[in-house]
Amino acid sequence: MTSRTQGQVRIVGAGLIGTSVGLALSKLGVDVIIEDISPAVQSLAIDYGAGRQPASSDAPNLIVVCVPPDVTAVVVEQELLKFPAAIVTDVASVKSAILEKLRANSADLERYVGSHPMAGRERGGAASGRADLFFGRVWVLTPSDQSSSSAVQAIENLALDLSASPIRVSAAEHDRAVAYVSHLPQLVASLTAATLVDAFDEDVALAGQGVRDTTRIAASDPKLWIQILAANAPEVRSVLRKLQADLDSVAKALDDPQATGALATLNSLLERGNLGVAKLPGKHGTKATRYSITTVMIDDKPGELARLLSEIGEIGVNLEEIKLEHSPSSPVGLVELSVLPDAESNLVSALTQRGWKLVG
Amino acid sequence: MTSRTQGQVRIVGAGLIGTSVGLALSKLGVDVIIEDISPAVQSLAIDYGAGRQPASSDAPNLIVVCVPPDVTAVVVEQELLKFPAAIVTDVASVKSAILEKLRANSADLERYVGSHPMAGRERGGAASGRADLFFGRVWVLTPSDQSSSSAVQAIENLALDLSASPIRVSAAEHDRAVAYVSHLPQLVASLTAATLVDAFDEDVALAGQGVRDTTRIAASDPKLWIQILAANAPEVRSVLRKLQADLDSVAKALDDPQATGALATLNSLLERGNLGVAKLPGKHGTKATRYSITTVMIDDKPGELARLLSEIGEIGVNLEEIKLEHSPSSPVGLVELSVLPDAESNLVSALTQRGWKLVG
Repeated sequence: MTSRTQGQVRIVGAGLIGTSVGLALSKLGVDVIIEDISPAVQSLAIDYGAGRQPASSDAPNLIVVCVPPDVTAVVVEQELLKFPAAIVTDVASVKSAILEKLRANSADLERYVGSHPMAGRERGGAASGRADLFFGRVWVLTPSDQSSSSAVQAIENLALDLSASPIRVSAAEHDRAVAYVSHLPQLVASLTAATLVDAFDEDVALAGQGVRDTTRIAASDPKLWIQILAANAPEVRSVLRKLQADLDSVAKALDDPQATGALATLNSLLERGNLGVAKLPGKHGTKATRYSITTVMIDDKPGELARLLSEIGEIGVNLEEIKLEHSPSSPVGLVELSVLPDAESNLVSALTQRGWKLVG
Repeated sequence: MTSRTQGQVRIVGAGLIGTSVGLALSKLGVDVIIEDISPAVQSLAIDYGAGRQPASSDAPNLIVVCVPPDVTAVVVEQELLKFPAAIVTDVASVKSAILEKLRANSADLERYVGSHPMAGRERGGAASGRADLFFGRVWVLTPSDQSSSSAVQAIENLALDLSASPIRVSAAEHDRAVAYVSHLPQLVASLTAATLVDAFDEDVALAGQGVRDTTRIAASDPKLWIQILAANAPEVRSVLRKLQADLDSVAKALDDPQATGALATLNSLLERGNLGVAKLPGKHGTKATRYSITTVMIDDKPGELARLLSEIGEIGVNLEEIKLEHSPSSPVGLVELSVLPDAESNLVSALTQRGWKLVG
């Protein structure tokens, strides 16, 4: 594999994102320099294969600043000054404040393009870094009117090298969008999870998949998120205001569900929820594809799944998704096979013929 | 396979739950009778294999009432009267109101045990029914002090036959618990998704996995949910009040994030969110097991996955979970293999030796 990205790449900040960028580019054969303010973190990232130590002879073409949001502008400015030929990007979750600070300090904006990979994990740090973190994710570029087209191209190449899908928007558009699709969901997940602190353990034992999904991101790092929320406070506040108004009317409806209009209020909210979730694009930026799902029950032992998959290979059907679930109490597992709707009947009849136990 | 459940089982209501119960019991060889107020729905469920037509000679041992919450008490009462030897349960999401109505009407509570399988899908209806819907899920039983022990045993047997894990609590405890782990999460998912209705399509295009997870259940049926929320209004209101108070202080903090104490308020909420989500049990009612994840890049064509899985079988490692992800732009797929931490190094070295391309 060859990379679109040419020359040395310097990464500043070896957290989850910096380490992941370094791992992915290193695997493509790019000469990656990775630096962190913490020598221990820097060594760890290098041990993992995310790049090499900085050297005085370094002459990076591209610099990726992956430091916490509250110091991003300062570090971007330093890097622009230190490497006057390099193109610089950052990966902070809020873009306008950084651009404004750089503009105020007369930074060389021609060589700067802000960006934001829409990828992450609940656990941060170099040790969580993964070369495939950006695979299939959106990578937002927020060029300013001063960004050179070659700078924009370099960041798009970076995104493509990491198997991400680049999208260009302005910094202001970005900040408005992430208030809706990232910052508000984070706040609401944390608010919901916080209510569980008061619940009895016996109550929480009844938890199903719904509450797990709605609160998964509540496990995220508070220190990172207070910076993000503070930096994008006006946009988040504006979306939050709508949610607050809706919540207040729902609460009022629940005070007396028999009152005239109470159920209509609840119904209207739930219906708007239906509409809102339907607006979300699928995993790869397209409207969610509906797959046909076939469930097979197998013995929960090494080799069984392989035998199943090997026979599916023989049948000639391509799997789109596969999910494995173990029974808590019995030595069987369920395998959920997702295929394109066209392929379903062929798969079902062939598997049945071969003696597999289909359920559902 | 033989069932614990003995004799005829009568299912009233052929929606998602009723059809799924019927499918699962029928596969175990149980004589299942399925009835629906809509002849078309009843025929559909029977076509799917969820049971047979009712007959005048029916003498069910067990009746499972799977009708909407607002008519559950009435139907349970009718069934108790119509079949004086049968044990009756229902599957409604709210339990106290039903028990109170039955008590008020002097129903034969000895033969009644309320229950609630913690399983569902965003799509309802007979056509969404699946025999494995309850596999590994909690099935809550809410016996009253009048329920006979043989009635309780019969419902536990039903849950076990469906591969669910029975848990006994009182109706009041159930309603308090689901306010936390089901009803509030549903409301906030709908509230969050509802904000997306006002977002531009370009904004929503930036959506990542976080917002998809937090809003997934917002696709649920409003008609069903207004009944559930109305029936459990006092308990939901009580949890909602805590969330409202937290939301108000977060909103205030975002009004002026530079004000003294504003960041501390945000930090405290996010930290409580961390604690709350950590309280949730894993999929099978135990604390979430941490698996080691190894990611392999494969050619996205039939047979490749099978070849991988077949070699993993030869290596002798048992997979706990498997996830398949396709690249939007290139003909490769990523396979995420989850194994017990002990097995990871063996798997990684063996796969590498066999020439598989490991990433991350």
